[in-house]
Amino acid sequence: METNVGLSRRPAPLRAKRRTDDKDAEITRLLITCPDRPGIVAAVSNILAAHGANITESQQYSTDPFGGTFFLRLEFHTGGMVGRSSDLVEQFAQLAARTSMRWTMTEASDLKRVAIMVSKADHALQEILSRAHWGELKADIRMVISNHPDAAEVAAWWGIPFHHVPVTRENPGVEDAQLELLAEGIDLVILARYMRILSPRFLSEFARPIINIHHSFLPAFVGADPYQQAADHGVKLVGATAHYVTAELDAGPIIEQDIVRVDHRCSGTDLRRLGRHVERAVLARAVGWHLEDRVIVHQNKTIVFA
Amino acid sequence: METNVGLSRRPAPLRAKRRTDDKDAEITRLLITCPDRPGIVAAVSNILAAHGANITESQQYSTDPFGGTFFLRLEFHTGGMVGRSSDLVEQFAQLAARTSMRWTMTEASDLKRVAIMVSKADHALQEILSRAHWGELKADIRMVISNHPDAAEVAAWWGIPFHHVPVTRENPGVEDAQLELLAEGIDLVILARYMRILSPRFLSEFARPIINIHHSFLPAFVGADPYQQAADHGVKLVGATAHYVTAELDAGPIIEQDIVRVDHRCSGTDLRRLGRHVERAVLARAVGWHLEDRVIVHQNKTIVFA
Amino acid sequence: METNVGLSRRPAPLRAKRRTDDKDAEITRLLITCPDRPGIVAAVSNILAAHGANITESQQYSTDPFGGTFFLRLEFHTGGMVGRSSDLVEQFAQLAARTSMRWTMTEASDLKRVAIMVSKADHALQEILSRAHWGELKADIRMVISNHPDAAEVAAWWGIPFHHVPVTRENPGVEDAQLELLAEGIDLVILARYMRILSPRFLSEFARPIINIHHSFLPAFVGADPYQQAADHGVKLVGATAHYVTAELDAGPIIEQDIVRVDHRCSGTDLRRLGRHVERAVLARAVGWHLEDRVIVHQNKTIVFA
Amino acid sequence: METNVGLSRRPAPLRAKRRTDDKDAEITRLLITCPDRPGIVAAVSNILAAHGANITESQQYSTDPFGGTFFLRLEFHTGGMVGRSSDLVEQFAQLAARTSMRWTMTEASDLKRVAIMVSKADHALQEILSRAHWGELKADIRMVISNHPDAAEVAAWWGIPFHHVPVTRENPGVEDAQLELLAEGIDLVILARYMRILSPRFLSEFARPIINIHHSFLPAFVGADPYQQAADHGVKLVGATAHYVTAELDAGPIIEQDIVRVDHRCSGTDLRRLGRHVERAVLARAVGWHLEDRVIVHQNKTIVFA
Repeated sequence: METNVGLSRRPAPLRAKRRTDDKDAEITRLLITCPDRPGIVAAVSNILAAHGANITESQQYSTDPFGGTFFLRLEFHTGGMVGRSSDLVEQFAQLAARTSMRWTMTEASDLKRVAIMVSKADHALQEILSRAHWGELKADIRMVISNHPDAAEVAAWWGIPFHHVPVTRENPGVEDAQLELLAEGIDLVILARYMRILSPRFLSEFARPIINIHHSFLPAFVGADPYQQAADHGVKLVGATAHYVTAELDAGPIIEQDIVRVDHRCSGTDLRRLGRHVERAVLARAVGWHLEDRVIVHQNKTIVFA
Repeated sequence: METNVGLSRRPAPLRAKRRTDDKDAEITRLLITCPDRPGIVAAVSNILAAHGANITESQQYSTDPFGGTFFLRLEFHTGGMVGRSSDLVEQFAQLAARTSMRWTMTEASDLKRVAIMVSKADHALQEILSRAHWGELKADIRMVISNHPDAAEVAAWWGIPFHHVPVTRENPGVEDAQLELLAEGIDLVILARYMRILSPRFLSEFARPIINIHHSFLPAFVGADPYQQAADHGVKLVGATAHYVTAELDAGPIIEQDIVRVDHRCSGTDLRRLGRHVERAVLARAVGWHLEDRVIVHQNKTIVFA
Repeated sequence: METNVGLSRRPAPLRAKRRTDDKDAEITRLLITCPDRPGIVAAVSNILAAHGANITESQQYSTDPFGGTFFLRLEFHTGGMVGRSSDLVEQFAQLAARTSMRWTMTEASDLKRVAIMVSKADHALQEILSRAHWGELKADIRMVISNHPDAAEVAAWWGIPFHHVPVTRENPGVEDAQLELLAEGIDLVILARYMRILSPRFLSEFARPIINIHHSFLPAFVGADPYQQAADHGVKLVGATAHYVTAELDAGPIIEQDIVRVDHRCSGTDLRRLGRHVERAVLARAVGWHLEDRVIVHQNKTIVFA
Repeated sequence: METNVGLSRRPAPLRAKRRTDDKDAEITRLLITCPDRPGIVAAVSNILAAHGANITESQQYSTDPFGGTFFLRLEFHTGGMVGRSSDLVEQFAQLAARTSMRWTMTEASDLKRVAIMVSKADHALQEILSRAHWGELKADIRMVISNHPDAAEVAAWWGIPFHHVPVTRENPGVEDAQLELLAEGIDLVILARYMRILSPRFLSEFARPIINIHHSFLPAFVGADPYQQAADHGVKLVGATAHYVTAELDAGPIIEQDIVRVDHRCSGTDLRRLGRHVERAVLARAVGWHLEDRVIVHQNKTIVFA
């Protein structure tokens, strides 16, 4: 019988998986926001049909078919054609100009570059990295930044560069250091239980999406220690909320929320323990939708084409 | 102070609400099934755009963008135009012929005629009638048919004609009697805990959709007394399944399912009590989707554009 | 074949079901709150054992086994013995005096007298009455009080006296009228979507439990029109909270909460429609636990021995 | 500013955490099964009170207060006393003999020795080890056994010995090798997606609890590839079931189940991906209850004092 203790060889780093699997190879995603009026879908689909694109997923929403705002998400397969052919793009640009349309077109195979910020608790970080490993979250995870050294081991094991940027009175350049790290083309920051508030200046300079996981059902329990607030209120459910970060604390557009039942036996500590699993699931779902370009922000709310 | 005991005046019968509210007045729904290939959405939306129709809801699905089957549901607002204008219909018919398309076009204001069949337990019946009363289920509920007299009062209170068709050895003509009642143009039969099996002959002669609520998470616990089966198995969840009825018992296309947590303390009776609320919610959701033409059956499974 | 339209005979009024079914016939419930310390359970169970009582259900909780507060709920079967035998009661009274114990002992067969207050929406009222009809809620429902005439028919059909007490500027004696009605020994008031705020004077004079259903996940969205508040926030869940009423608006001890998932497509109206089903389920569960003496209030929170 | 890439120092191995935290230090757990009759609780609590034990948690259940089987779980704090004092144990033994009682008494600080068996998929293994790391699952995890080498890295990182026992035609001694490994006093085997069937001989020789996670809502979809079975049935929910292993495949006592909603868009692969998260949560909850002696098996069903 053969029995041996496993070796400790590290898995291939996640960031090496720059290109995604074949299934995504020729998928292009189109997101559109424009004033609603008849004929938009026809105009868009005519351009795609003329280029031989096959629509594989389509979702739309209108705040009001008469004078409201129209949102459309398409995934299309571009067959032999080069996905973002210059002619296709040119025609969209012309249509967009005529119809006051905002639009983005991305290749599914072009993974977003992600930085994860974290403090001491590692469960949300672990979840993001595990789901990336299992192929559920397709991203180019470039770095972990933390104000504590605790997460270094987790990052190292997954082969992700770890940056320790302590937040202390003696370290006034914290945000500059963070911004310098993020300057290497990071598309998305995930606050995976990062317990410091980012300043308006940081938000303004980074100027790209930041997803935070707040450990309560917002707008209940804004601010510090929401589980203790929940315990003090004797609530029968505790929740978590993933939202885009804006200058107003815990008030940015909500992407996803969920809850877990609790009861009178639960202390603040118990709520933290139970809430942990909701937090990581909610954050992972929100991040996944963002990575697949399924979320549009409109007037501080989200349209999620899940 | 004015205090008076309420009078017993009956509410206006539901069936009087033949026309729906203004919001639905000019909404048309289009359901399409066809072989998938590029250009379908463009072709459909061009016809609509040419007639000034504004698409207010659109959902699509393909079993496989390459050689699979394509499903599309559209709601569109026809503005001043007569909804199902003969020209629009004609153009669709031509498109359908060219593309092997099966399609239906219905007016949201044209309520489906419904018969509800029930045995003794009245909770599912009550739920359907209550939701119709609250405006959630838009239907022309024409009759209640039962093999027991118990539901007569409920039907009477809501102003729905009640037909008692006992199932006994002395009454061999049961199904003929039922079919005769349904012959007045019934579009949908709801089995709201009707505890008799409908024969293949009945199904073949009625030949229109029948939705049943089965009191378990199918395919577990097919057949009689599923709650006792569940109790005997010591399961920790009990469920309910709404499905279209086919000749094979409890094996028709599933429309909706849900569950409720239970524990070791629950007897078969307790499971019945807890399951009752899942049953009525699941049935009501499934019926609502059907009434709004949101369900397509394909190879004994459903596509639900909820 | 026999076919007849159902007669309109009213069901026997619920309030006639003063005595509950056999199963409850000899069940006594004991609720205890006292400072925690060793030996309490032994002392209590010795008294019961000495009287031949068989404990059929037992739940306990301590805020802290060292110096905290101890809560105990027992159901016991008293066999041939008269349930609340004077000797048993006497021994408990002595134990309670020695141990600073607060306690109540009730017979399961002694149904609580209930008044339901409601405004226009009848779904919560219907749910309570339906569950009473199905035998899930065991109560002596004595009256429905409303500031609108709308619920009169529902009350009448179930055979419950209906009292219309309009709330108008010309009717300053509203609360006096309500209190006079409740004076006939009402044990519990259920606010089944009663949309007026009860004054501190009312609460102080009635001085018995009042359960309210608030149509949000408290403490989010206190006050008026919580569904519109929820829609404005773009939340992904809407909830309902059943709580005891105290002088502080929507801040009394929470008994039960639940939620339903919603998405960007939901208007305030849609949230109201979806929330309705959560409201009635949450209220019914909370009322059921109260009726079975499963809820203890301690420091504005509830212990629920569900 | 200090910025450094994290070091790869391994965390202290889990198995080093042989003694649990202070909170559990003096907690004893008592599980009792016996014929129901009056006076049992009094007899048990008298013994505890006489030894100065303070009951901190108590749950009980009776299949039938008249002639049924009675189950009791107590946690008590033994203060200065040696937890399992010989006198206390002696008195229980005498009581048990008089009342046909089966009982076990365990110290919370005496961690169960656990072996985890796994095949290729590592999500359930990761979940168990993560929750152990976070302090949610208190166990002495001694080894990981696998028929594939894939999990070696995960085990190594957590500092758990890994044993690769390939299952091949050339390796007829597989079960002997496994049994030899388990012979070092393993109290519990967790099948964390171990995809081989254990033989009756293995079960009979190991003769201690084995918890399996089955990737469906049992009893639906017994056997191989339940997600594909679910996809073929077009179910709207997929689930997972944690159960004790018995000789009959997938038919042992169910400890915990849960589900996730799916829809027509989900392929078998998608169901696998979605189901993964249900599997790991369900398995972790079931294992946690077992580790805390909260599960009693009775007639192929479980009583779970969660």
